[in-house]
Amino acid sequence: MYEQRVETVMRNLGQRGLSRLLVCDPRSIQYLTGVYVEPGERFLGLVLAPDAAPTLVLNALFSAPADAACDVRSFTDTDDPLSLVAELVDTQEPLGCDKNLPARFLLPLMERGAAARFVLASDAVDDARAHKDEAERAAMRAASATNDAAMGRFRELVHEGITEAEVAGQLEGIYRELGAQGHSFAPIVSFGANAADPHHEPDGTRLAPGDVVLFDVGCRQNEYCADMTRTFVFGEPTPKQREVHDTVRRANEAARALVRPGARFCDIDRAARQVIEDAGYGPYFTHRLGHQIGLDVHEPGDVSATHDAPVEPGMCFSIEPGIYLPGEFGVRIEDLVLVTEDGCEVLNSYPREIDTVG
Amino acid sequence: MYEQRVETVMRNLGQRGLSRLLVCDPRSIQYLTGVYVEPGERFLGLVLAPDAAPTLVLNALFSAPADAACDVRSFTDTDDPLSLVAELVDTQEPLGCDKNLPARFLLPLMERGAAARFVLASDAVDDARAHKDEAERAAMRAASATNDAAMGRFRELVHEGITEAEVAGQLEGIYRELGAQGHSFAPIVSFGANAADPHHEPDGTRLAPGDVVLFDVGCRQNEYCADMTRTFVFGEPTPKQREVHDTVRRANEAARALVRPGARFCDIDRAARQVIEDAGYGPYFTHRLGHQIGLDVHEPGDVSATHDAPVEPGMCFSIEPGIYLPGEFGVRIEDLVLVTEDGCEVLNSYPREIDTVG
Repeated sequence: MYEQRVETVMRNLGQRGLSRLLVCDPRSIQYLTGVYVEPGERFLGLVLAPDAAPTLVLNALFSAPADAACDVRSFTDTDDPLSLVAELVDTQEPLGCDKNLPARFLLPLMERGAAARFVLASDAVDDARAHKDEAERAAMRAASATNDAAMGRFRELVHEGITEAEVAGQLEGIYRELGAQGHSFAPIVSFGANAADPHHEPDGTRLAPGDVVLFDVGCRQNEYCADMTRTFVFGEPTPKQREVHDTVRRANEAARALVRPGARFCDIDRAARQVIEDAGYGPYFTHRLGHQIGLDVHEPGDVSATHDAPVEPGMCFSIEPGIYLPGEFGVRIEDLVLVTEDGCEVLNSYPREIDTVG
Repeated sequence: MYEQRVETVMRNLGQRGLSRLLVCDPRSIQYLTGVYVEPGERFLGLVLAPDAAPTLVLNALFSAPADAACDVRSFTDTDDPLSLVAELVDTQEPLGCDKNLPARFLLPLMERGAAARFVLASDAVDDARAHKDEAERAAMRAASATNDAAMGRFRELVHEGITEAEVAGQLEGIYRELGAQGHSFAPIVSFGANAADPHHEPDGTRLAPGDVVLFDVGCRQNEYCADMTRTFVFGEPTPKQREVHDTVRRANEAARALVRPGARFCDIDRAARQVIEDAGYGPYFTHRLGHQIGLDVHEPGDVSATHDAPVEPGMCFSIEPGIYLPGEFGVRIEDLVLVTEDGCEVLNSYPREIDTVG
């Protein structure tokens, strides 16, 4: 499996006129070797080059499993890992670079002339990762099934006077009980006007009658990420809450209905945006419609007006329209979809209709 | 306060022959402006230049508070933020770069010739951040006091048959109850032989009699990080567990006893390492002694054999010797220290003597 993935990446590289790549993204390294390490400020790099096994340059503090699909060159905190990288690449050839390679490693590699040129090339890995194979599709389905089950538990936590932070603090335990590894990202729990900030962090705000209750949550399970949003109301919804919620739900539905191979990301974004614009809330939908997802919760290739490529089988992304009314409330409804050969699977089945909690 | 910090950074820059800096580290931006944004894959940059206010280039999805100590240039997901950066810097002057500036932004800035040269220069900010001012010292004390209190609660969670993951899942709620924002890093809870991996991730391992129980945990409170490790034993410690625990405790003590302005980081590391080597466990202490800490849980300037600078008043770092016996168990005992004018304050007071749990 890993060998096949490396072959795909090398083929993608070749199409870009490159034969060597330095990967430093931990999840890309996991995708290509099965080894997952979060190195913090320490160096971590996987070098792909012709006629050589993929080679991981790894701090001795971390260990690769004996069956890792790569060679390993180890260094300690007092060694220079970049000299190991320089040995593995070719001063006469251009080197493809991970888009996340930090300046503290890139600039010294440039200064020592480790390669003829340094070229952004992690799209060779990103393209491979964007097309989920069967094992990955199964993992994405399972993580979202857990997220659906968890949402049913999360809504039970909500009662008058509880704070966002108190609710947020209880989510991880529920995910773990349900078999997940934990959160795939810091959960968003927003009450009332806080939900008008799409990236609100849970704080000491107490739930009050009439508040919307927004959960934007995901678990990581078998290494793959889930991500879903539902917006409830604590008490009887006002007519405006109903109208906004219904508009967002229809925008989500319109976008999902369009997803099949050949549909363009920008048209999927447009379909949702049109519903919201037609309802008069266009200026209050302030972000892209969605993002790809897999080993990372945000993977490259967003669902937005600027991305006019067609979707392809195996791609997995979020559909997450929202309306944000500053000082009042916000609503977002988000599902993951997986593109199939002739349409799409919606990975979340948790109900989208407006519902009350508490 | 922010103005003073920016002045310090500009002075540090000047000593390096630079007058312009692009900061992208979110915590450095918070340190200099009060604005904290985690931009994910989106661009975030603070430009410092002479005769101009610090200017934050910020995606429109995020907002800066009205009283932010900087100007803000906003861009949407369909704009090019690097053209905003290019307007703020000078093609004829070298540009100091954040060590974490990712290749996906650095290489395009180089290609468009946005500056005469690109030079690693975030040590100008790191040096400022390494010297905690009074407000920061108070925040570091408070976060560690909470961590001490939390450790007392965490040990109560442990009983026969519970898994590491079940324990780990309950920690965040306790931190929040105690007034913290949550974890400062993913907690390490290791039972038995798992503790021999310094970076073990909590999993389904169940506690069994005779296991060591290692907690490496920290909270974030008022934005500043705590970090402490204690290693308990479930049941009566074996003579070997006692010997190893005692060795690590003495190593921790020997290092702490040395901390005062003028002592070198490498000598503090050596003091702890010597105790462990003298006890015959040298090869099993496989990492540096510690790291600096503040707004980030790991800040530059580690406590290791290769760092021969002297410590200075206001510096805050961890002292965390360990002995890791593969297949058997591991022990680590970690405290934070804050360098004062004539010595140091130990920020953790949770007992270090060997103790049983369960």
